[in-house]
Amino acid sequence: MLIVQKFGGTSVGDLDRIQNVANRVSETVKKGNDVVVVVSAMSGETNKLVGYAEHFSKNPARAEMDMLLSAGERVTASLLSIALQEMGHDAIAMTGRKAGIITDLHHTKARIEEINPQKMQDAIKEGKIVVVAGFQGVNEHGDVTTLGRGGSDLSAVAIAGALKADLCEIYTDVSGIFTTDPRIEPKAKKLDKISYDEMLELASLGAKVLQNRSVEMAKKLNVNLVTRTSFSDEEGTLITKEENIMEAPLVSGIALDRNQARISLMGVVDRPGIASDIFNRLAEAEVNVDMIIQNVAHDGATNIDFTVPVGDLHDAKRIVDTFIQSGEIKDDSYNEDICKVSVVGVGMRSHAGVAAKAFSTMAAENININMISTSEIKVSMVIDEKYAELAVRSLHNTYKLDQ
Amino acid sequence: MLIVQKFGGTSVGDLDRIQNVANRVSETVKKGNDVVVVVSAMSGETNKLVGYAEHFSKNPARAEMDMLLSAGERVTASLLSIALQEMGHDAIAMTGRKAGIITDLHHTKARIEEINPQKMQDAIKEGKIVVVAGFQGVNEHGDVTTLGRGGSDLSAVAIAGALKADLCEIYTDVSGIFTTDPRIEPKAKKLDKISYDEMLELASLGAKVLQNRSVEMAKKLNVNLVTRTSFSDEEGTLITKEENIMEAPLVSGIALDRNQARISLMGVVDRPGIASDIFNRLAEAEVNVDMIIQNVAHDGATNIDFTVPVGDLHDAKRIVDTFIQSGEIKDDSYNEDICKVSVVGVGMRSHAGVAAKAFSTMAAENININMISTSEIKVSMVIDEKYAELAVRSLHNTYKLDQ
Repeated sequence: MLIVQKFGGTSVGDLDRIQNVANRVSETVKKGNDVVVVVSAMSGETNKLVGYAEHFSKNPARAEMDMLLSAGERVTASLLSIALQEMGHDAIAMTGRKAGIITDLHHTKARIEEINPQKMQDAIKEGKIVVVAGFQGVNEHGDVTTLGRGGSDLSAVAIAGALKADLCEIYTDVSGIFTTDPRIEPKAKKLDKISYDEMLELASLGAKVLQNRSVEMAKKLNVNLVTRTSFSDEEGTLITKEENIMEAPLVSGIALDRNQARISLMGVVDRPGIASDIFNRLAEAEVNVDMIIQNVAHDGATNIDFTVPVGDLHDAKRIVDTFIQSGEIKDDSYNEDICKVSVVGVGMRSHAGVAAKAFSTMAAENININMISTSEIKVSMVIDEKYAELAVRSLHNTYKLDQ
Repeated sequence: MLIVQKFGGTSVGDLDRIQNVANRVSETVKKGNDVVVVVSAMSGETNKLVGYAEHFSKNPARAEMDMLLSAGERVTASLLSIALQEMGHDAIAMTGRKAGIITDLHHTKARIEEINPQKMQDAIKEGKIVVVAGFQGVNEHGDVTTLGRGGSDLSAVAIAGALKADLCEIYTDVSGIFTTDPRIEPKAKKLDKISYDEMLELASLGAKVLQNRSVEMAKKLNVNLVTRTSFSDEEGTLITKEENIMEAPLVSGIALDRNQARISLMGVVDRPGIASDIFNRLAEAEVNVDMIIQNVAHDGATNIDFTVPVGDLHDAKRIVDTFIQSGEIKDDSYNEDICKVSVVGVGMRSHAGVAAKAFSTMAAENININMISTSEIKVSMVIDEKYAELAVRSLHNTYKLDQ
């Protein structure tokens, strides 16, 4: 098999851990596999460099930041390659440039446009372990770019896609994807397999494990993604296409997102295009609007409720204020003490009643549902934050996820 | 003027010092100059990375070392560019690759083959300050290489040559080139100007300031080199071609090299080619032979004395031993308690009697001269190490270097 293994900052956090990673790669090779390793910077290193830059400027130039930040992954890749060579393996360290990772021109959050895997393929043919500095690529001007948050995961998935690897293993300090957060529901179970779409919906649950960008790319490139821990031999969770999961359960997991705030707009003037105006302005300010509810208008005015991440609340308020000043919105109110509980499962597509079951579970616990939104494979409910744990545990029990 | 300014590890040793460097560059620009800055890694950074590599291997692969070590200069260059931008300057950080520094294939001690200065020239035309990561280049395979010890100085000189810069300033923690080591002779004076050839001969005196490789390149490319300190506004020493120095003094300086050992070979069989055999074998083992004295043969045997750096003594002994075992050398002896004192000055070319004056100075102090070697602009004498300081001070006085 050809396996891409990606190790994050915690997994390469010090020299001993880099040696552990070398041991794990070595074992994988000894089992007869070809391995491409993608590494992050040693944990703390990127933050240190960002701190250096911020010493000089609150808003450092992005091209310079990319040249600065890309240094961390180069260090780890070189060291891991040296460690593997010392163990008797033929290894070669590659920068993002050498690995052929071509990006667009957006410094500090570049998008991968293309991978030219020739040099990696040549090295693999020569029996070499390829160790790639993650998080970085090169743009058409030949300048180093970085891929933003979760960038090393993206490097790994894109490389796995370009090389048509059998597996792309993402090593973190978490052992896989769980039916829900085990800190809330100790009966939560690790999933063996989950579909790309479910993983995307469980994002808020799995955010610390995998970014949606990586899962989306894995789905697009049809990469079998495994998320597992580098601190034990425990098997992880395979994220793959739905057809590869023989018997998908009705519900795969319960996700909780505490990072939401609700904005209520009262007395919104009922003219055509007003909602479009409001939400376009929010989009321009890069406010991430999630759920939206609009009532039917009464007396020439309507109410609109929507949720945004807590971090975007300040920007959202600023924009809402301009509409209040122009008289198009009468009043507003904000609530940060809410959360979003979601039931996720591809089985919902073919089975009715999943949503109804969720609503009656809430009712049985006397939890009031503020907002509801559904997709083909998800039911999300906004509730008061104080009920968060109770709701998660009740739903976990309702769908028998501990079995 | 177009000025290349190079700042070593101590000058960029922490964030405050990088800010100081930015201030100095800014002042140079405000005086109406175009500036290209070449920076080393922050002091300690390269050693830290070497230590990391040695944790994994005593003999790490050189390509990996280059990828590892080149990270340090990239960090400094990015940070300095950010600092300059924050001060309102238009600055751009460049890796060795972007600056167009093309080297041969020798990882960890590559030689610069060519500079393609187009991107630097374009940036200068746009009014930008160019900040280049020193010590690094790129080979014909597109892989990062490093230039070995003193590599950032080489980068600066090569860039100054390629850009036909008016001046190449090398900033260190030393304020210039002195007539001799001020720790030995407090009356030593800083030289305003010195020729390339004198600087090369004074290497042992100036080793901590400038490596011969850089001076040789400056001579070849006709680069006006200034060595000065980054910790004050004190003027430094200009190293330039002889024609630029109107009235060269008879003697420019007294150099002391304590790092020499003397090897005496007794009863060397007098056959044609024996000396060639011995010194070829030493050269193959990369032993740096400096002075050689061979007596006229008596009774089919001769004596040969030579000096080597103390660090090469072990290797030299090993080779001499093989000749003793084969019977071609009868006996050997070693002396590490010697030193080499040199009188250097281009004025010697046109003035007789400089060497004679040196010998009579030694005689007046009752210092026995073990070996003598002379060049057009230098007289070197090997003496017992205990007389080192006395010899330096006496010669300094003889040639009135304190005036």
